[in-house]
Amino acid sequence: MKRVSILGASGYTGRELARLLASHRELQLDGFLAAREGVAPEAPELECDRAVEPLDWARVERCDGVFLCTPHGTSAELARKLVAMGKRVVDLSADFRLKSAPSYHAVYGHAHAAPELLAGAVYGLTEHARDAVARAQLLANPGCYPTSILLALKPLLAAGLVDRAHTVVCDAKSGTSGAGKNPSERTHFGNVHENFLAYGVGTHRHAPEIRQESGLDDLVFTPHLLPVFRGILSTVYVKPKDGVTAADLRACLASAYAGERFVRVFAKGQPELNRVQRTNECHLAVAESGPLCVLTSAIDNLVKGASGQALQNMNLMLGCEESAGLV
Amino acid sequence: MKRVSILGASGYTGRELARLLASHRELQLDGFLAAREGVAPEAPELECDRAVEPLDWARVERCDGVFLCTPHGTSAELARKLVAMGKRVVDLSADFRLKSAPSYHAVYGHAHAAPELLAGAVYGLTEHARDAVARAQLLANPGCYPTSILLALKPLLAAGLVDRAHTVVCDAKSGTSGAGKNPSERTHFGNVHENFLAYGVGTHRHAPEIRQESGLDDLVFTPHLLPVFRGILSTVYVKPKDGVTAADLRACLASAYAGERFVRVFAKGQPELNRVQRTNECHLAVAESGPLCVLTSAIDNLVKGASGQALQNMNLMLGCEESAGLV
Amino acid sequence: MKRVSILGASGYTGRELARLLASHRELQLDGFLAAREGVAPEAPELECDRAVEPLDWARVERCDGVFLCTPHGTSAELARKLVAMGKRVVDLSADFRLKSAPSYHAVYGHAHAAPELLAGAVYGLTEHARDAVARAQLLANPGCYPTSILLALKPLLAAGLVDRAHTVVCDAKSGTSGAGKNPSERTHFGNVHENFLAYGVGTHRHAPEIRQESGLDDLVFTPHLLPVFRGILSTVYVKPKDGVTAADLRACLASAYAGERFVRVFAKGQPELNRVQRTNECHLAVAESGPLCVLTSAIDNLVKGASGQALQNMNLMLGCEESAGLV
Amino acid sequence: MKRVSILGASGYTGRELARLLASHRELQLDGFLAAREGVAPEAPELECDRAVEPLDWARVERCDGVFLCTPHGTSAELARKLVAMGKRVVDLSADFRLKSAPSYHAVYGHAHAAPELLAGAVYGLTEHARDAVARAQLLANPGCYPTSILLALKPLLAAGLVDRAHTVVCDAKSGTSGAGKNPSERTHFGNVHENFLAYGVGTHRHAPEIRQESGLDDLVFTPHLLPVFRGILSTVYVKPKDGVTAADLRACLASAYAGERFVRVFAKGQPELNRVQRTNECHLAVAESGPLCVLTSAIDNLVKGASGQALQNMNLMLGCEESAGLV
Repeated sequence: MKRVSILGASGYTGRELARLLASHRELQLDGFLAAREGVAPEAPELECDRAVEPLDWARVERCDGVFLCTPHGTSAELARKLVAMGKRVVDLSADFRLKSAPSYHAVYGHAHAAPELLAGAVYGLTEHARDAVARAQLLANPGCYPTSILLALKPLLAAGLVDRAHTVVCDAKSGTSGAGKNPSERTHFGNVHENFLAYGVGTHRHAPEIRQESGLDDLVFTPHLLPVFRGILSTVYVKPKDGVTAADLRACLASAYAGERFVRVFAKGQPELNRVQRTNECHLAVAESGPLCVLTSAIDNLVKGASGQALQNMNLMLGCEESAGLV
Repeated sequence: MKRVSILGASGYTGRELARLLASHRELQLDGFLAAREGVAPEAPELECDRAVEPLDWARVERCDGVFLCTPHGTSAELARKLVAMGKRVVDLSADFRLKSAPSYHAVYGHAHAAPELLAGAVYGLTEHARDAVARAQLLANPGCYPTSILLALKPLLAAGLVDRAHTVVCDAKSGTSGAGKNPSERTHFGNVHENFLAYGVGTHRHAPEIRQESGLDDLVFTPHLLPVFRGILSTVYVKPKDGVTAADLRACLASAYAGERFVRVFAKGQPELNRVQRTNECHLAVAESGPLCVLTSAIDNLVKGASGQALQNMNLMLGCEESAGLV
Repeated sequence: MKRVSILGASGYTGRELARLLASHRELQLDGFLAAREGVAPEAPELECDRAVEPLDWARVERCDGVFLCTPHGTSAELARKLVAMGKRVVDLSADFRLKSAPSYHAVYGHAHAAPELLAGAVYGLTEHARDAVARAQLLANPGCYPTSILLALKPLLAAGLVDRAHTVVCDAKSGTSGAGKNPSERTHFGNVHENFLAYGVGTHRHAPEIRQESGLDDLVFTPHLLPVFRGILSTVYVKPKDGVTAADLRACLASAYAGERFVRVFAKGQPELNRVQRTNECHLAVAESGPLCVLTSAIDNLVKGASGQALQNMNLMLGCEESAGLV
Repeated sequence: MKRVSILGASGYTGRELARLLASHRELQLDGFLAAREGVAPEAPELECDRAVEPLDWARVERCDGVFLCTPHGTSAELARKLVAMGKRVVDLSADFRLKSAPSYHAVYGHAHAAPELLAGAVYGLTEHARDAVARAQLLANPGCYPTSILLALKPLLAAGLVDRAHTVVCDAKSGTSGAGKNPSERTHFGNVHENFLAYGVGTHRHAPEIRQESGLDDLVFTPHLLPVFRGILSTVYVKPKDGVTAADLRACLASAYAGERFVRVFAKGQPELNRVQRTNECHLAVAESGPLCVLTSAIDNLVKGASGQALQNMNLMLGCEESAGLV
């Protein structure tokens, strides 16, 4: 039984990881810890919850792997220390997703705190980086929106089926858990129920990440806020190359993900959020619509879009069964 | 005080019209009627509701205007009879939206029952057809999705600011009231709550209507089902012509709708469903996103997308204040 | 046209009053104001909202009536000043609901700031205090839960149909708008959606108010939080006196509220929140259940439970049509 | 590995059982079957669902246990046949819950189809009937509302802490999944969202079941419909005997359920639906409110209130670990 700890455990992703690890047979959750020293133990919300305990480096020391559920900016410093301790680290923040420090600075508004680690960090879209993930010391867990979009696009781009000169439109819709556990105007029940809106149009930080990983410069990304708690559905519009049909795209995806436990390509019908919620699955479909093809991709943003994929990656890094704790 | 009747009153649009007419000072709702003869009066769902009464042509005869809240296919026959009676008719179904009988046949799967009326029917997107509406004998009330999309696109197309050669992507999201009042798998609470999905991808019947009225052949339309009751938010991606900016598009819309009571163009911020619900308003915004501009448009599908716009049109047809019953 | 102002306008009740007053033909909303001096004007959430302006006593001076949408504790001081200015005041807070200063202190945890006004304040459950309301200088607008429960109980108690020795159980369920506009853990979307719980069991501050106004010492009140925005449904269990039936209770209520515009007693069926939302109505039903009778009462907590009843009261105080702005 | 089948698998309880059995290490789900012969296989709603297959007695024959997810009236006939085949049977319908055939006839409106089995059927409120459950050939799985209410009441009644002469009020609130998978007016999204109401007041079929199992004749039960999918919260009002406090009741419950894996008694705080959803747990709290004590009890109606408790019972009947498939 190997040991893992979670730093920055008080948010949704930390709690979700604890939920998944509870049934894991090869990993034991040792520390469920605050991210900063000197923080008092945090009483659980309810008696049945696990309390967040103060940061304790001795407990971290005896672990094999560490999950960073800390905000961007905080993760980088912690990652440096943990890497120096020889730990395998999965960072759920954005700190190691962008490959260049200047890009990071431009997007996140402050200098990167550990730029020397960027080159070695592995971008962990598991199904597309399995070998690199297994060897990674430091893993950048992909963003929720990028996961949903890249799983749909990458096989098609790799196969050369998509016209890269035609703008790819990614219209994505997320539940509110993506906005985190702290109360805010944006997530006040009175402002979410029976409501829907676009936000961050043209400015959302996940757009550079999607562009970097897809290699598409000419990609437009618009996130929207759904009145649901869990799930992302992305609707992606691509122009197939001449002579390429929706059936070709579907066949390409089906082939790329044949044998994958967590990605399902629909022969008919459309993905729905309620089929992927609380699972680590991604459901994909392709349909033709005039000159374009419409890819739809559904995941649970807290699972495949965060804690589930993080665990999938840690499983590979620590030599466990890839799906342990996830099925 | 002029008189109007509603035929096919038992659905959401009939009920919504009755709600709006209750505070109308120039129109009296005389008949709240079934669409077919021999139907027994329908008990209201609750004591406080108005009961649907059997079809009674004598009551229709004494009205000035008639709203058809009947399904497509049923409206055409009724419209023929009502036009022959000299009534002003607003048809909320799709029967007179498409200009050609063959197109109608192709889209709706059966021959048009009153093709001789198609040429004279006015497509009532009010802000863009006010004079023709005022003179119309038979008015085709626009579909809910087309209303939201066309209000955003038409001024920009008319001003020549959009590259028509570049596919326009319309990603639209609707509440469940668009699917009507009859229980179905699709609108069962257990299938809607906490859920979201695309439907009718590449095949929805509103696409030909949007293409006809926008004049854009190269337009892609994808509807989605939101876990809310009222409202449509459409996200429309256009490529501005060279040198044209998002600010130019915004200025064009602001100018086109200056003085309009029911269309609001945002200088900043994004439309939200909960700001237009139960109003006849359309809220519009423009943002830049890479090479494209993103238009967002919000309406209440049951009001501006159906009964509200129907009343706005009837007001013009019968010489009432255009906003009567709507503010 | 008489003038009114709202002090403490930034919350839900202030906004709701502004919505209702927009269509009022006899009252003009002059000041939409902060409650404290020196507060900068508050930008509206959206361009279409009305901005809250700084407190300006000159504007208050020219008004006939003032609504206090301020928190308890703040209202008392303002009321003293406004009464001294000769204004008619409707206070939506709890400051003048309890008749005794010691009770107030015990329930709200601080001394009452204007105890000399308590005796003269009128408890404005409109249908049961119409004459006193019309003469009131200072009116205590009833709490939302008490309104729903007292409208069901008072006629039955007055008619002597209920066994006062048997504990009356009031099991009440409210939407989240009762918790106000400020984000909190309790009203975070993630904590409300798909959830339901009791709160303040045995300790809620509305219990003493209900006991005072019903004259029932032996009354138990339990509030619950519904995953809806607007509305309260209270289920009230009473023991009828020997020989009294549910039909007798129903007839008593029907007789008491005959001719009332805003109270409806059902002959069959059950009140539902979605029939009273955005209305000033209260829907009541009575059913037999073993040895007890079950009264169900539905209101919109923001309308009949707050701003609607406040306007109904102000209408009477200023000599307007009682239902102006409310239908 | 023992084998079980589900008859009447197409509803929510059948689907939920399949979900739970998927991770069961001691039981294999062999037949996922229609309840009547000659029914064609039912295509799954989505590719990832398991299809319901035609009834096949050969497959049933090779099973050790059978779950009846059939409607009341249908279960009785099937149970007779299965008992004759020597199978262990868990019936999720109401057919074997009431102990007397005349009571059944009075409540369900038709004669019982297998009255000779009533005496031997075990009422499976697991924590209160563990030994009888283990020996049962035919088990009546308790109703959802009764489960939530009886788990709160039974230890207190057994300990003699409650005044049985004082009417016990059970005010219960359920999500819509209790109304089943078939679309209906009652569960149409437009009628559930943002709504809440009481139903079956004084007439619900679970009241006789609760009275029988609690031994309380003087008990009032009122169900309500919540705009959520899963969960029941029951608020139960009891009068403690003289000198008995809320703390005594809490201690009694804590002692009764010490060591129970699926029942949790709160020392502070209130049960919430979102803490029990998708679990087999029941959360209980006790609070004082004037002369009464308020018990609150939360379960997931589809798990502890149906399929979860059914599996817990089958586990005991077939000699498996009681919590297998449930944690």
